[in-house]
Formats: sequence, C-alpha cells, structure tokens
Amino acid sequence: MIIVMRTGSNRDQVDAVSNRLIELGYKTNPIFGVEKSIVCAIGVPEYDKMEAADQLRSLDGVDDVVFISKPYKFVAKELRGKTVVDVDGVKIGGDEVVMMAGPCTVESEAQLMTTAEAVARGGAKVLRGGAYKPSTSPYSFQGMGLPGLELLKEAGRRFNLKVITEVMHVRKVEEVCEYADILQVGTRNAQNYDLLREVGLSKKPVLLKRGMTARLEEWLLAAEYIASAGNERIILCERGIRTFETHTRNTLDLSSVPALASLTHLPVIVDPSQGTGRRELVPPMSKAAIACGADGLLVEVHPNPDKAIKDGVQSIDIKAYEKLMPELGQVAEAVGRSLGIPVRV
Amino acid sequence: MIIVMRTGSNRDQVDAVSNRLIELGYKTNPIFGVEKSIVCAIGVPEYDKMEAADQLRSLDGVDDVVFISKPYKFVAKELRGKTVVDVDGVKIGGDEVVMMAGPCTVESEAQLMTTAEAVARGGAKVLRGGAYKPSTSPYSFQGMGLPGLELLKEAGRRFNLKVITEVMHVRKVEEVCEYADILQVGTRNAQNYDLLREVGLSKKPVLLKRGMTARLEEWLLAAEYIASAGNERIILCERGIRTFETHTRNTLDLSSVPALASLTHLPVIVDPSQGTGRRELVPPMSKAAIACGADGLLVEVHPNPDKAIKDGVQSIDIKAYEKLMPELGQVAEAVGRSLGIPVRV
Amino acid sequence: MIIVMRTGSNRDQVDAVSNRLIELGYKTNPIFGVEKSIVCAIGVPEYDKMEAADQLRSLDGVDDVVFISKPYKFVAKELRGKTVVDVDGVKIGGDEVVMMAGPCTVESEAQLMTTAEAVARGGAKVLRGGAYKPSTSPYSFQGMGLPGLELLKEAGRRFNLKVITEVMHVRKVEEVCEYADILQVGTRNAQNYDLLREVGLSKKPVLLKRGMTARLEEWLLAAEYIASAGNERIILCERGIRTFETHTRNTLDLSSVPALASLTHLPVIVDPSQGTGRRELVPPMSKAAIACGADGLLVEVHPNPDKAIKDGVQSIDIKAYEKLMPELGQVAEAVGRSLGIPVRV
Amino acid sequence: MIIVMRTGSNRDQVDAVSNRLIELGYKTNPIFGVEKSIVCAIGVPEYDKMEAADQLRSLDGVDDVVFISKPYKFVAKELRGKTVVDVDGVKIGGDEVVMMAGPCTVESEAQLMTTAEAVARGGAKVLRGGAYKPSTSPYSFQGMGLPGLELLKEAGRRFNLKVITEVMHVRKVEEVCEYADILQVGTRNAQNYDLLREVGLSKKPVLLKRGMTARLEEWLLAAEYIASAGNERIILCERGIRTFETHTRNTLDLSSVPALASLTHLPVIVDPSQGTGRRELVPPMSKAAIACGADGLLVEVHPNPDKAIKDGVQSIDIKAYEKLMPELGQVAEAVGRSLGIPVRV
Repeated sequence: MIIVMRTGSNRDQVDAVSNRLIELGYKTNPIFGVEKSIVCAIGVPEYDKMEAADQLRSLDGVDDVVFISKPYKFVAKELRGKTVVDVDGVKIGGDEVVMMAGPCTVESEAQLMTTAEAVARGGAKVLRGGAYKPSTSPYSFQGMGLPGLELLKEAGRRFNLKVITEVMHVRKVEEVCEYADILQVGTRNAQNYDLLREVGLSKKPVLLKRGMTARLEEWLLAAEYIASAGNERIILCERGIRTFETHTRNTLDLSSVPALASLTHLPVIVDPSQGTGRRELVPPMSKAAIACGADGLLVEVHPNPDKAIKDGVQSIDIKAYEKLMPELGQVAEAVGRSLGIPVRV
Repeated sequence: MIIVMRTGSNRDQVDAVSNRLIELGYKTNPIFGVEKSIVCAIGVPEYDKMEAADQLRSLDGVDDVVFISKPYKFVAKELRGKTVVDVDGVKIGGDEVVMMAGPCTVESEAQLMTTAEAVARGGAKVLRGGAYKPSTSPYSFQGMGLPGLELLKEAGRRFNLKVITEVMHVRKVEEVCEYADILQVGTRNAQNYDLLREVGLSKKPVLLKRGMTARLEEWLLAAEYIASAGNERIILCERGIRTFETHTRNTLDLSSVPALASLTHLPVIVDPSQGTGRRELVPPMSKAAIACGADGLLVEVHPNPDKAIKDGVQSIDIKAYEKLMPELGQVAEAVGRSLGIPVRV
Repeated sequence: MIIVMRTGSNRDQVDAVSNRLIELGYKTNPIFGVEKSIVCAIGVPEYDKMEAADQLRSLDGVDDVVFISKPYKFVAKELRGKTVVDVDGVKIGGDEVVMMAGPCTVESEAQLMTTAEAVARGGAKVLRGGAYKPSTSPYSFQGMGLPGLELLKEAGRRFNLKVITEVMHVRKVEEVCEYADILQVGTRNAQNYDLLREVGLSKKPVLLKRGMTARLEEWLLAAEYIASAGNERIILCERGIRTFETHTRNTLDLSSVPALASLTHLPVIVDPSQGTGRRELVPPMSKAAIACGADGLLVEVHPNPDKAIKDGVQSIDIKAYEKLMPELGQVAEAVGRSLGIPVRV
Repeated sequence: MIIVMRTGSNRDQVDAVSNRLIELGYKTNPIFGVEKSIVCAIGVPEYDKMEAADQLRSLDGVDDVVFISKPYKFVAKELRGKTVVDVDGVKIGGDEVVMMAGPCTVESEAQLMTTAEAVARGGAKVLRGGAYKPSTSPYSFQGMGLPGLELLKEAGRRFNLKVITEVMHVRKVEEVCEYADILQVGTRNAQNYDLLREVGLSKKPVLLKRGMTARLEEWLLAAEYIASAGNERIILCERGIRTFETHTRNTLDLSSVPALASLTHLPVIVDPSQGTGRRELVPPMSKAAIACGADGLLVEVHPNPDKAIKDGVQSIDIKAYEKLMPELGQVAEAVGRSLGIPVRV
C-alpha cells in the first residue's frame, strides 16, 4: 500500500500517516519527493486492511492510496496451478473444452427432452435450462419453478448430461441443490452477497456470471465471497458487460478470458448467447471464445426459437447447433484442445 | 408495438407476423414501404406482452420490434399526479426538500448519537445509517447488524428523526421493518427481484437506489416490482452510474431528476456522497441536486470522517454539514421550495 | 513515479529498473515488501517522462507504473489562482456567471437577428451560433460557412454581444478568427491535435468542449496542447459524456465542474443543450450547473425550434429563455454570484 | 420513418405531422392506437432526411421518431456482395486473412529494417509503422515525420511489403499518399470530418479505425464520409471501445466483426494491440479475431519492446511473432481460411 500525499503536505501530516500505518501493523517508509511525498506501507496483506485504506484516504494531506497487491487470496493465481472443477466426471478447466447447452427456459417436457437429446447427441456434456428466471419486468415469465427443476433432473438422467440451472433466491438454494449439478449465479445477482455466501456454504460447483458492470477485480471479489465461505469449486462465466454500444445486447469482453488466466486459477467459460443477444453472432463468437482460451461455452439452444418463451432471439436451433459443434471442434484442435467429439479431417 | 420487417421480406412473412399478432389479441395494420414493410399492432398494452415481443423478434423476416408505449403501469406518470410519500408526518415529494443525513455505517452509540443530534439540529428530518452493509470485498466490515438497528431506533426516538437503513437480505426484511421507518434497497440489489418483491409485500416506504448500470426504464421496472407487489410508497434515489470516468467513484447523473419527473409520479432524491465518492464534491452537488428539482438528499455525515470505518472519504463532518444546510436552504428558496429551516436574508 | 514489481521479481530485475530510472535523471529508492517490491523515482516531473513510463512498464518483472504527479503543467491548478478569460470586457471565470446563447446553427439573417436581439435583451453576453457544423452523417446540413460567420459578426456588432462559433478545420482557423471572439473546439475534435495546436497558435480565447469519451485528465491534456502552443486563454465546457444511458443524448457530468476547480485554474462552463439533448431538461440542468459552480452556460435558443435545421429538439424558444434567465439569476444569487441581470426580490 | 405521438396528442397534432411529412415528399399513414397514435412516413430514404427527422421530433405532440432504414448507402450491405480491397495485389476481404505487422512507431532505420525483415519472413503482407503519432499528452513523442515515411517506403520496397501508416493532418494527406500504400485514420480522428473527406478525395485505400466511443452505425457513417467523397476502398478496423473496465486499455469488441458482416460490404480487420494494451493478450485475441471472421490483423511488433519509444507494453517481440504466425495459420484453416503461409500438419 502506498499513501500518496498532496502537493504541499507537511512533515506532521506525513508523520500522522506513518503513525496510523504503524498502529495497523505496517512498517513504513516515507519518501520525500520534489513535488510530492509518499509513504510506503509494508508487511500486511492488503485484503486484510480494506477499511484501513479507506480511512487513510481521508487523513489530512493524503491525496490517494494505491494498492500494490491483490485484494483477494483464495481465488488468486499466485497461490497455485489451474483448478479443474470436476462435476461427477465432467472436468471443467482441463484440456477438454466443455459445451453446456440447452434452452434459456424450461417450457415443457417435450421442449426440454427434444433439446436435451439433441445437445447430448451433438457432444455437449452439460444441459442448461432455467427453472427460476430473472426478468427486468415483473410482467415477464418468471420460470416454471420446481416442476422445471424436476424436468431438468430427469433430462440429465435420461441423456447422461450434468445439469446447470440458475438459483436466484437464498431460500431456494437447498431446493436447487437437490436437482442441479452446478448452481448458476446470474449477472443480476453478481453482487447479491447474501446469495454468494449461501452458495458458498453449499457443496455444489458454482458457475458465477460476470456482473454486467463488474471490473475483473470486482468479479474476482464476488468469487472470493463464495470461496471464503468454503466452496472453491467455482467456474467463472464471461457474459458481456454493459457499454454504450446498443447493436448487441451486451459487449462480450473476450479479452477477460486470457486476462483472468493470469489473475486466477479458476476456469473461465463464455456465454455468447447472453453476451451478444443475437443468434447469428453465437457461432462466430463461440469460435472466438475457444480460440482465446475459454474452458467451455454456455449456449442457448431451442428446438423452435421463434416460439421460445424467452430470449428466442439469441437462441440457435438444433440444426445450427449440429452444424456448429464440429466447427468448434476444429477450432479447439487448432489451439491444442478438444471438444470431446470426433473431428473431421 | 411496431414490427419492422427486413429489407426483402415477403408477403407471407408479413402475413405470418399479422397472424401471430391477432392470436395475441392485437389488431394489425401492415404498411408496405419502399425499402421496408412494417406491421403495427394496436389494442393491447405492451407491458402485458413482453414475451410476445421477444417471440416476434425471432420470426422469419422480422428486423426489429419497436415499443411505443411504456412497459410499466403502476409507476408511470401518465396515470396520476405526483406522489407524496408520507413517513409518519415527514412528507417526501411535497414542497419541502427533505434532508436525510447520518453516518455511512453505525459504529457505536457515541458516534451515532453525536451525529443524530447534529443532523437533527441542522434541519434533517431523517437519520440514515447502515446496520447491514454491502461490501465488494468479503474482508470488509459488514455492519453491526441488529445492535446497529437498535441504536438507530433509539437515536430516531431521542432526536425526533425518522430512520432509514439498508436491507440486503430477504430473510431480514421483517427484522429491519421493526426498527426502520424507511427501507433502503441499495444499488447492488437493484435487480435482486426476490428482495424487491419482499419489500413490496411490507407496509414500509421503500427508498430504491438506481442500479449502477440501470437505464431509467430499468430502474422504473425495478420500482414496478415493488409496486406490483402492493407497495407504492416508493422513493427513487439517484446515486450515480458506472462510466469510464475514474476521477469520481460514480458519475452522478443529475439529469435523471428532471427526466424522471416526466416519466413517473414517484418522488426522486439524490445521494451526492455515493454519487461522487469525494467529500469535497458533496456540497456543490447537493446544491445542484436541489436546483434541478430533487425532492430530497441522502448525505453521509460523520463526526470524524478520518476515523470512519467505511467511506469516510465521501462523508462530510458536522461542521461542513452545519455550513451546508443554510446554503442549501437558499438554493431551495431560489427554485421556489424550502428546506424547512430558517433562511438568512 | 512508482514502479511496482511483480510478485516473485528478483533483485536483478529491481536493479535493472533502478538503473533505467537513473539514466532518465531520477533518484531511486527501492523498497522490498513482503509480497512485492517497488521502486520510487524521485526528482523529475512526470510530464517530461511520458515515454519513459511506457518503457518501464515493459521491463522484466514490472507489474505497473503508478504516476503520483499530474501529467500537465500549464493548466494545472497548483501553479496559480483562478484564471479569468477576458473577452474584450466580458470576463469568464469571475464573479459573474456568463450566459452564452443562440441558435445551434445560423440559418438566415432573420433567424439570427431575432435570436440575437432576444438573447441580448435577456442578459446574455455572448452569442453562439454554428457556421461550420459537424454532423455524424455526411448527408446532414454542414452549416452556411462564411456567410454564416458574416451574419454572426454583424449580429454581435448590432446587439453588443461577443461571438462564439465552432472551428472544425485547421485550414479555417484564420478565417474564423476574423469573425469570432471565441473559437469553439467541439467534442469530436477534442483529440484532433493538429487543430488544438492551430488554435493554440492563434491569439483568440478558445472554448474547449470535453471529448465525449474523455476522462478529466485527458481533457486537461487536450487543453495542455493549446496552452503549450502559447495560448492560455482557455475555457473548458462540460457537454456530457457517452454512457449506456440512452434516455438523454449524453450524460451531463456536472460533478466535473467542482472537480475541475481543484485540478485546474481554467474557468469551466456547461452546455445543457448538448449535454441532455432534450429541451425540457435545459432549464433544470442550467440551474444545477450554476448551483455547483459553473462560470457560465452555453445554451441553444431558437425562435422556432420546431423548424430548426439542426437540434431543434434540444433548443429552447425565446419565451422559455426569457422565463429562464431571471430564474437562473436567483440561483446565482443563492450561491453568492450574479448573472449580471436585475433579480426580482 | 415512424413518428410516435405522445399519449393524449390530438387529431390536429397528428395532421400537422402528416402535413409536414407530405411537404418532405413522404406518403403518410396515420394509425390511431388505444394509448398512442403513430404516423408512418413512406417513400423517401431516411439518409436523405436526417434534418427532417430532427425537426419532426420537436413538433407538438411528437414523442419520438423511429428510423426503420439505415442512414448510410454507399457502405450498406444491402447493395452488394463483399468488397475486396486490392492493394497492388494484396487482397483484403478475400479468402486469405492478411497480417499487417510492424512497430507502433518508426524509431530508426535499424529498428524498422529488422522488424520489416522479420514480419515479411513470418508471412505478413503489410508493414505498419507510425511516422506521425497522436499522443494524449503534448509532451509525448509525436513521431519522426517525413524521415519516418521515407524509411517505411524503403522497408516496403526492400522486403516486398505494402506499407500502412497513420495520417493525422489534412495538410499532410498528399505527403503521406506519396509514401504509403494504405492510409490509416486513427481512433481520435474517427469523427474528424475534414480529414475523412480529404482521404476520401485521395485514391488510396483507407483503413478506418473505430472511434473509441463509436456505435457501429456511427462508425459506418464515418466510412460513409469517405465513400461519399468518392473513395470506396475502405477497410474497417476494430480497435476496442472505451468502457468502465480498466484492466485492459480498451475493451476489444470482437462481436463487431460478425455484426458488421451483415451491415456492410467492407472488409473488417482487428487490432489486438491497441484493443487490449497488453502484449500477453495479443496472441489469444489475434486467434479469436480470426476465429470470428476478421479479414486481417494489425499487430504491433518490435525487436525490443522494452526499449520501444511508444506502446512497448502492447508490442510483441519478434520471437513471439514467429511463434504466433503458424498458430494463427491453424486457426485460419479451422475456419476455412488461410493466412497465406505454410501450415504444419
């Protein structure tokens, strides 16, 4: 931690800063520059002193407090190699790129089973589908709830797929744990700390979507909430951020994939459906995601997108999915990985 | 609702769109332009057809679906005059601009009582203070919890102030209702629909902060969640949005204040502390907020900001607060309102 | 300048950084922390070493280079008191808040003279009007050019108003200087360094609009281009930044006004017309701008906004202007300033 | 064009809108809905009526004007197949993905020739290098100017590379045309209409970078400035947009690549160096760019990035470039294209 003093700050102010740092357990090293002075604080990790930094910032004569180490520990790269999240045999973060596919929302048994059969046949290892759905409008469909969860579990069993579904309510975590193999925390709940802790207390793998307004560090701190509650089986999912661009629903920030690789040991996957909001962009952005190192994809597939209850506009149909999978397999091969399906030569 | 067809769409596609609209209860009116055709849907409010719009968007030949009416009803301006939220005699949304002031976080009895006494003396009508605090880092202070609520209630009673405090957890709404006069929903929970519904089921006035990434319409839809659950005593609070600018913690979007006046009947207040993250900007932005029509302010005041546990850097001290209040009174007078305190002539 | 080393960097890497700094004329002070080491560079202003910082950033073992002083000098607050730009007797940056008003675009003699007469009568000191107009589309009206300039000069002479108009082309700076009292550099040219230098070489006061994507520091560096070319008669103009919000054309960042007051000695005015893109927001945001310390306003006024060639939707009509001015006068009084017009008591 | 009337607008207002549209050459079709009325304008392309739309927006009773066709014509997809820009035999927009590589800035003969030799050997077809450099700070290096251009031309000749370099000043377009094969217009000049027209009048291919704050439509309108001046040999270059994320210098919006494919016939390339600002992200994002359909790449390569005058932190060294090229070739093959170099099997 470096405390930068304002131009014109005096010796007493520098001393006051030093003394406060010493109270906090730091060793200090003040440096008197030509224009400015600074005080360096050494010896205590910064994630243990978040409030202290805030307090220092408002001491007389202080211009800024600059962090030089990371504010998180469990999810930080520095401590270890890459984590592979093992979901009963499906390994996320290993050599294989894992496809998670399925409808935005579970609508009916027929819709789900048709989709599940197709995505399994195409090579997906995980079935996605919403039973509890967040919606910006209270008048939009909010999901089937428990019957949706039951259908997901049955589809997973029948087609040998792991199941991922979103959990939105702390009071439903236990229920969702009974039916899903991976708990998904959505972008709107990316700073719902109550929910983050609750899924952290569960034993299930958690897929944590990026908050639509989250910087990488804030995203990692959200993951740290889960990890510090005892659950380190976390998969990060880039799903686009909010920017001024309106052509796409979000701006898919693929550079987060390689950037996170140097910041955290957690696996990172990409959701090109939410990330673009346009089905015609899903295939090219899926390829791009794999090309820059994503450990998996989360893709919306629907047997009849034009009749989908939600987000049909960003869902690809089964035919498009079947065409896409071998193309993705080739891109995976090109970057030294595999999609776990046969590749045409 | 207007359905814009792609260039080159054919008659069959237009008919398919019309038929779907008719199924949905609309009357339709197709128009064949030189470059493009459109189909107008008439007769059903759009907030009742959110999914339908989504489905239409993915029909063959459809380029876009344009809404021409608002997606919310309870909070819409069109239905009525301005709402005054009456908090046991303190009226928010009337002629008087209401000051809500107090520490970011309740830290101790001494800290809270000192502040409460000062803010009451200066003319504030509402005491703010956090007992449950959201923090980006799991290692930051998370608030005193219940003992903090008890102190707030006691301070309110002692100094004749209404009390506002944040509620973050659905499982704590009942508890917070026992101690607070106004429930605050913070920016991180602005799309936590579970919480929005829960406070909507309570009988308490709710202060709803703008999500840091919320467009005005999304903010109003969050309010609609509360209103549609049965609680229309809602106060909106502008607190800044996230932009590329890093000098300030957020970008305080004051234009939302007059803009909302034409979109909703709900009162709007401003939080210049969170909105700027810098205490020296609180006084000028408080004045600006009143000048452009805010119904109130939410300001962080601390007896010793340099020792504050949280956000001291954006808290003004008691002396600054005492200087500020009569200045705000003068600005209020200049725009034909009052702060409910004597004004120097 | 502080050079933060990566975790695990070794002594040789720290020495290499130190040696490079010494070559650059700095004294150095390496500090070996628990997790990280840093090297402090002392003795040379940072604005003289912009490339050096860039180079240092890519040395082995370097994680980041943190600036601790400002990268500009002529426009920095630290060197002096507030600058008053004197435009032949009209003082911008003094006690009086200066109103600049007029049409977005000069359309005809009748339109301009009607407007000029009205704005002068209402208390404006400066007439605004576009002769060369930037437009996002090549098919939009690009302004009258030279005849427009002639009309502006004549209107200024006739109604005793100073004239401000935009200059877009380096090859037209000389021409515009002949007709205008203040050169305006628009948001699209806020990083057109060729133009910034050219107006810096002129002797005219320059109004520099904020780039729609400029952080405060970048805006000040644009001003530094003008100042370092020899022209320090610069007026900054906040005109909104681009954000995700689409209700307003831009997001008017009024907090820049008091923020700049501590960063620069230059006067700051506000353009609520461009800043909001909605005429009904111009009066409240004009009041807010004065309340938070703006030294002036730049407001679009048109005798018949519904027939305006450009931007009528953000122009107020003469009646609205006449109603607004005394209201602004009252807000100015409330913050201890004046609009230079009689105030109703 | 659809004119949406406000709730409560009356018949006279609708008639006034219709009459204005008829004056403008449109046929009209008013539709009276339950909540709102609309007027459809048919028969004249919207790019010819940009001001008209603005005027209509401010008529009494008008709520909004909605465009339903594109505001550009020369660059619009609808008119034709994909354009291949042929730079003396190097075809951009064809099957082959074209690598453009070289230093950010020309620093010396040795630096440039070393780099040019290496990039040619590795398979690049175009040499990039800045002779005139835009810099946020006036105190940063501004480029070698004419001697830099001479070196570029010589390097191109010697190693059989086409040359691309930035032109910043209208008064230098002619000079740069003498030395370069492709004129680059940078992000800061993306709305410098004077410069756009000037390069439009030249006969040279133009690479137009995306403005850092440009929506796709605005970017295409900037291209339309060039095209409407007579030069349709335009290459678009995605280089990242400005967002709240600070980890990367910009947010590289790769989804623009496939999105533009449906909006325009122009080729699109990607600059991962500027787009991320971090050299370690250049290889993965280069692969991603090719995977989602980019027609080429613009990559900064420097023989010794740690000593680069500018932007060394985002430049890869020659070794990294040599490793990258065959990897890119494999990704190109995986998506059915080629990099024009031998691919290892």
